[in-house]
Amino acid sequence: MKIAVDAMGGDFAPQAIVEGVIMAASSLPADTQLVLVGRQDIIKELFQKHGFESSAVEIVHADDVIEMSEHPTKALSQKPNSSIGVGFKLLKEKAVDIFCSAGNTGAMHVGALFSIRAIEGIIRPAIAGFVPQVNGKHAIMLDIGANADCKPDVLSQFGEIGSLFARHTLHIDHPRVALMNIGEEEQKGSVIAQAAYQLLKENKRIQFVGNIEGKDLFTDKADVIVTDGFTGNILFKLGESLYGILKERGIEDEFIARTNYESIGGSPIIGVNGNVMIAHGISSPLAIKNMISWARQQVEANAYIHIAQALA
Amino acid sequence: MKIAVDAMGGDFAPQAIVEGVIMAASSLPADTQLVLVGRQDIIKELFQKHGFESSAVEIVHADDVIEMSEHPTKALSQKPNSSIGVGFKLLKEKAVDIFCSAGNTGAMHVGALFSIRAIEGIIRPAIAGFVPQVNGKHAIMLDIGANADCKPDVLSQFGEIGSLFARHTLHIDHPRVALMNIGEEEQKGSVIAQAAYQLLKENKRIQFVGNIEGKDLFTDKADVIVTDGFTGNILFKLGESLYGILKERGIEDEFIARTNYESIGGSPIIGVNGNVMIAHGISSPLAIKNMISWARQQVEANAYIHIAQALA
Repeated sequence: MKIAVDAMGGDFAPQAIVEGVIMAASSLPADTQLVLVGRQDIIKELFQKHGFESSAVEIVHADDVIEMSEHPTKALSQKPNSSIGVGFKLLKEKAVDIFCSAGNTGAMHVGALFSIRAIEGIIRPAIAGFVPQVNGKHAIMLDIGANADCKPDVLSQFGEIGSLFARHTLHIDHPRVALMNIGEEEQKGSVIAQAAYQLLKENKRIQFVGNIEGKDLFTDKADVIVTDGFTGNILFKLGESLYGILKERGIEDEFIARTNYESIGGSPIIGVNGNVMIAHGISSPLAIKNMISWARQQVEANAYIHIAQALA
Repeated sequence: MKIAVDAMGGDFAPQAIVEGVIMAASSLPADTQLVLVGRQDIIKELFQKHGFESSAVEIVHADDVIEMSEHPTKALSQKPNSSIGVGFKLLKEKAVDIFCSAGNTGAMHVGALFSIRAIEGIIRPAIAGFVPQVNGKHAIMLDIGANADCKPDVLSQFGEIGSLFARHTLHIDHPRVALMNIGEEEQKGSVIAQAAYQLLKENKRIQFVGNIEGKDLFTDKADVIVTDGFTGNILFKLGESLYGILKERGIEDEFIARTNYESIGGSPIIGVNGNVMIAHGISSPLAIKNMISWARQQVEANAYIHIAQALA
């Protein structure tokens, strides 16, 4: 298994990324190879600084870097030799099994659509966030930011692809799919949420358990939480903020620790022809290390193949 | 000052409501009179049970009750002698200064629109939630559920009426108004959020500080948080859920305690010609007691008069 990591993407790149890869390398199973994509000279210098040498990590050189603030589509076409551009080239050629980056989220999303492309039949791929549950499990919530505006059919499909992802990657046999809404009754919510409810209810390929509310985000009412990328992004970022707020107040707790973005480290793009993981811009070495461990699970499951089969 | 409280509204009414009023009565300033609206026989029986007698509390009889699950508009026209119907009649006649209820939220919203009506110039009144901030302050967020779908001009007006409410009720001279969004940059967000940003930016009557994100909900980035009733409701309910989740995990903290719905007890409707407060359906006696203390502040400020003047 080959896991490609963008060495240049993220607020603290390349240092934090390279350090995270070094941390991960020591505990990798023998079948796993890490591929750092980025400026070879800089990466080698960082390896040297840390006295790191391992046959488990290779470097694929990329001249350019897409900055966090750049326009995704423009940047990708102007910088084909950026680390994101090269990473997706490797993924498309199946030279690697997954591409992960803490860089420009928009460029990662557009890069996936331009290179490995959306699975046929997918209206809109989504970014899925792992949401820790108080009982120790994780739910996945989609979309958490790729599509700020979602039509009802898009939301219904999120239920389907989220369900397939949860089944194969989180090993939940019959994932409970719920719609994030402002009341439990089916006539509650925005015009779009009401219409999405009907489509989800009629969708025979999922186990739809109805609406959940904001208070249910962490309480294991669902395995797959369907929402638009606007609501999902705001909820996800609020959830992630709890760790820092409570840490500053001297509170340590196992559940709250799991709301820390570092404990997962990344969010997959679901609905494209391959494995892609997006990490937080502020990613620390620990976040990158944990992302690599989730990336392994994602490659072992290859949920995208099951999604493509289900939609064929 | 006369504060009317619906004795019959809420999951634990009338017991919890009457107990809350009894709790509040003992610490009321001399100028404040409580008016319990509901079935006189039942309320008197509860007073007797608690050995309560006070000239600070009077009863206004109402024959009927609107149940939590009833259709708001239908219920209000079929039950003019319900506690909600009678409460709004008192408010409209200015026999009381504020009407508070933990009953059917929809019926409270529709009741306000039918009786005291929206202030002229108000496109859509909103329910405003008090959001505790880590530094001890409160922000107000609107809308938290009255309007699931909001057009940009409605959101811009929320900024204005929220700002006036914060100035007069929370005594913040120049309230910072922010738009809840999925990124800080002005081109971020849903189509509606992007358009709302422009209107808020151009609105000379408010101090617009730009977008905030989910992670900023509790961190005092704004005094007034503008959002649609769909996003706002989900965020608000997630916020309120933290207290219960952490209490169960044995965590006690002053900030988390303030996320408990009981610590405020109610949410005002802003944009109507009078003072209205909606309490949580599950309201406990403590919640009702605290709601009454916020109701006093609301009456002292009479922000609705300032809003009407500003829009005239």
